[in-house]
Parts: sequence; structure tokens; C-alpha cells
Amino acid sequence: MLKLTDIQRAAERITPYINKTPVVTSSLLNQWLGHEVYFKAECFQKVGAFKARGGCNAVQKLMEAHGEVKRVVANSSGNHAQAVAWSARTFGIDATIYMPSFASQVKAQATRAYGAEVVLADTRQEVDQLVSEAAEEPGTFWIPPFNDEAVMAGQGTAALEAWSQMKDEPNAVFAPCGGGGLLSGTLAAVRGLSATCQVVGAEPLNGNDAAESIRAGAIQVLGSSPDTLADGAMTLSVGDKTFEHLMALDAFYEVDEHDIAYWTQWLQHVLKLHVEPTSAMTMGAVCQWLKNKQKRQKVLVILSGGNIDESHMRKVWADDHLANPPRL
Amino acid sequence: MLKLTDIQRAAERITPYINKTPVVTSSLLNQWLGHEVYFKAECFQKVGAFKARGGCNAVQKLMEAHGEVKRVVANSSGNHAQAVAWSARTFGIDATIYMPSFASQVKAQATRAYGAEVVLADTRQEVDQLVSEAAEEPGTFWIPPFNDEAVMAGQGTAALEAWSQMKDEPNAVFAPCGGGGLLSGTLAAVRGLSATCQVVGAEPLNGNDAAESIRAGAIQVLGSSPDTLADGAMTLSVGDKTFEHLMALDAFYEVDEHDIAYWTQWLQHVLKLHVEPTSAMTMGAVCQWLKNKQKRQKVLVILSGGNIDESHMRKVWADDHLANPPRL
Repeated sequence: MLKLTDIQRAAERITPYINKTPVVTSSLLNQWLGHEVYFKAECFQKVGAFKARGGCNAVQKLMEAHGEVKRVVANSSGNHAQAVAWSARTFGIDATIYMPSFASQVKAQATRAYGAEVVLADTRQEVDQLVSEAAEEPGTFWIPPFNDEAVMAGQGTAALEAWSQMKDEPNAVFAPCGGGGLLSGTLAAVRGLSATCQVVGAEPLNGNDAAESIRAGAIQVLGSSPDTLADGAMTLSVGDKTFEHLMALDAFYEVDEHDIAYWTQWLQHVLKLHVEPTSAMTMGAVCQWLKNKQKRQKVLVILSGGNIDESHMRKVWADDHLANPPRL
Repeated sequence: MLKLTDIQRAAERITPYINKTPVVTSSLLNQWLGHEVYFKAECFQKVGAFKARGGCNAVQKLMEAHGEVKRVVANSSGNHAQAVAWSARTFGIDATIYMPSFASQVKAQATRAYGAEVVLADTRQEVDQLVSEAAEEPGTFWIPPFNDEAVMAGQGTAALEAWSQMKDEPNAVFAPCGGGGLLSGTLAAVRGLSATCQVVGAEPLNGNDAAESIRAGAIQVLGSSPDTLADGAMTLSVGDKTFEHLMALDAFYEVDEHDIAYWTQWLQHVLKLHVEPTSAMTMGAVCQWLKNKQKRQKVLVILSGGNIDESHMRKVWADDHLANPPRL
């Protein structure tokens, strides 16, 4: 299991390169809920998502361990692609990102804009095959999207940084679950920082492999890509390293598609932040956790990122959710 | 004409109550344009728009002039409604806002949430009639949306504040034109702060009454509400006080609907800010102004606000503009 010292060491490595993102609040939301919600706005992170933290830490750890790193490779259709591309460029290292050809053009373009070579393949299986072949070459290293200690430790620095930005310790920290890297790092950071603060995960009900895995006590794998707005949480299964951490969470909630869309509209509308559905989903977990809490709670929500392609924005705003708030 | 000292006096009044909004940049945009663009993010202002500045200054000026102010009234279907409601509540004054019944429910709700009484009427004419009747009552004062020196001076504080946040003076400052209040205050601030910095306005081509007025040297009035995404710039005509300032601008550009939608998507996507189409429109003017500029320019863009109802968000994201950037 990761420890706070791993997160602190990661923070030392990456702080000169990443953005210190703001912690924001909404008095309207706090009045409505009767609790205090603090949002760590990782949409303002390099590459638009917390993933820059893990990528930046992983690249530097590789450089420390191997001296010369000629090239890094990654397989991703999402934020991890841009994170590895940006991290590699930051340290003058070549990067090749293998992407399925059905990935969004905007994301492939953004990855190229960070200087990486993008190789498209027809299927996910082919993408995985290509990246493992590439990683065999001397001087080339694979940076996995979540099931990797350096990546997980990097992601944990968001919570560590938020601690320095808040007056008092929160009662709970919430983060979304894709492969579990952000939650694993967050758990390690918070367990080291606080004796009482809870760590809570959120996952789409339509792609609830992590919730099923926690219930079963063993990793469950989805048969096919889940149908969810939360495209950062479509991973088919968590990894063995992240699963160990997920089992130690204090609570874990599944959020339905209506609530994901509702909170995406609401946070964009009220916070004036362009947050991803995967980030907004976490508010569904916050509301479930707050139910029956008698005392005023203070919670920290890690808004994971702000990269949304045009087709997802169209889906988010297709219906008028603001007029139909969920019952709290 | 307003002077810098009016803006400075307004800033002294309102600074304890309003947000100091950040100035943000995009390295991607600057690389693309070959110039430096600084965005003053008034979407993070109280009530989500620069209008809080003018409202807050106007309410305080009324209190200074009349001692007791029992109630303020305003006619608005947009950001000015919320600005007056919020300003009144800040100073413990009653507020009644007259709105057309076709105004968005979300905006009426938000205005009520700031503690104002909202009175709906069927037509704009009826709304105007009601507000002028209400303003006859002793102790009740009307706060106009733009054609008012206190309101104009308040709006000018955004540029003044940005000056203190930038290392060097910009070559030009850009703002959108609805009734002209923001541009008037901005002009007064910048003329007093700089001997060379230009002040430039932007208006929807589909509702170009201000551009026509400047060309004709006399106020032109639109026959009906223009069909534009930039709903903050749908005013049928500017006022006599704002027109005097608009005539002194260095340049004024009309922006077509494609460019308004394109820049709204682009700024939301890249800046991760939930900006209104009226704010994003200003980038169309920036691009026109930058054409044929040989030397690297530094420009300040006042992003006026971030209040967009669900129907406008749906229109903004209906087509994939990101894949079709305008030719620069």
C-alpha cells in the first residue's frame, strides 16, 4: 500500500512543473445542502486534468531509476494520453501514444499538440498489443494509466495540495473511480494526514465494476464498454494495485446517468467551471453520503478534469436538468 | 464623459463587496495567434457577470445621495436583474425586479434567490411601464441597466482592476457591446490609465445597432429583438450617455453567429471556463483587429460573464465548431 511519504515525495518532484489549482466553493450550494463543499478544480491542471500529476511523477521516477529515458509510451484514448505527452515534452523525452481510431479527434489532436507521436489502431486489443511491443525496445518505458505506484502517488498530490489550501480538515474527501488511480493516491494521502477524515469513491451505476469488485472482494471485469456520460470512468476493470486501495475506502457510491447529467449542468452553471461529467458525478456520491448526517459536514471534492468533447457536451445539455433537481 | 476618477471612486465603493476576478491566459491560444491574450474572468464575479460592479456602485451612490433608500427597482430579463437583486440585499434594501414572462425560468429563480421580489409581465412595454410607475413612489429608486453614470462607472472597474494584475500595459482592451455600459466605463478607465492603449468594442452582426449608430453618428434602433446567440447583446439601442463614449472608441467590430459559437466552444473547451456567448464573441473582434498587425500585440479581453441558460448551451454545442476553426 502507498504511504503519505510516497505522495509527499511525488509532490516534491512535480510541484515545479504542474499548476497549483484553486479550491473553490459555492455559497448557493452550501446554503442548499446545509453543509460545506470544497472543490479542488483540477480542470485547471496542466492538460486539463489531474492525470498530469501522475504522468509527471512517473516520468521523473523513470529518469531517476534508469538515467537515460529515450522514449515513453502509453495506451489511452483519454486524459492519460495528453498527460504522458505533456510530461514527456516537459523533460525532453520522446513519446508515442497508441490510441483506438474511434477515439475523439479533438483528443488525438491535443495529444499531438503536446509533441507526441500518435499511432492509431482499429481495436483496443491491437492498441494494447502495440504498446507492449514498443515497451520491449531498450530505452523505451510504458507508463500505465492507473495500476502503477508512481502514477497513483502522483494523483494523490491533489488531496495533499488541497490540505494546504483549506483552513480546517474536511470530514470526507470524494473522488471519481475509473481505474482507481486517483482514489488510491487520495486514500494514501488522507490516511497519512488525518486520523478521522473519510475517503469516498464514486462510479457510474452503468459501469459499476469497482463497486461490484468491492462487494465481491475480488476484481470484476465488465464484458463491454459501459454506456455512460462519465467517459473518464469507462474502464473495464480496476487493477490489482488500485483494488487493494479501493478495498480500504470508507464508502463507495454508484451514480445514475440522470444525476451525472444533472450535476454536470449544475456545476458548469453555478461554479462557471467547464467540468467533465466524470468529475460532476462525484456530487451524486456526496449527496448519498450526506443523507442522515445530523451535524454540518465539510467535504472536499476532487473535480478531476475539464476535457469534454463536443459530442459529450451535446449529450450533457440535451435535456433541461436544472429545472429538475434530484431529491436530497 | 466619465473620467478615470469616477472609476477609481467606484472601485473604492465596491471593492469590499465584489470578487477580485482572475486574469487568465492560454499558452495554446497565444502560440496559435502569435500574440498575447489576457482574459479578465468576470464569469467569477458575484452573480456571474460584471453587472454586479455597476449595480453595487449605483446602490451605494443612491445611499450617499438620498440617505435612506427603501427600495430599488429594475427592469431586466438578464444579468442586470440579478446584479440589482444582489446589490440591494448586500445593503439590506428591498428590490423589485420587473421581468417579461418569457424570460428564462432559471434567471427568474436566481433573481428570487438573491432575495428580490420578481414581478412578471407579458410584454417588454408593460415591464417598462411598471418600473417607471414603481420609481414614482417615495424612497424607491430605479437602477437602469446601462445608460446611467453610476452603472457605467462601476463597469469600468473591471479594466482598472485588470491593470493592477498585469505586468505590462496591453496594446488594446476589448469588451462586448449590449447597451454600452461596460464599454463606456472601460473607455473612461483606459483613457485615464494609458496614453496609447486602444479600446475596442464587439457586437453581433445580427444585432448591429451600435455599429450602425457609430457609422451614422446618431443612435439607430433595431425594429425587433435580434436573432443571436449573444443574448447579452440583444439590446435594441444604446443610450445617449453610452453612445457618447462609444463614439470615442478606437475600433468596433461586428461578429457573425458562426464565430460567436466557435469562440464559445473554444473558450469553454480550452480555458475550462463556462463563458457566455456574449463574452466569447469578443474574440471575433480580437481576431479582426489583430489582422495585419506585424508586431506582437498584448490584448486584454473582458469576459463579461458566465450565465447561460440551458437552451443557449444546447445551441452553442449543437454543431462541432472545434473541428472548423475560422481562418485567421
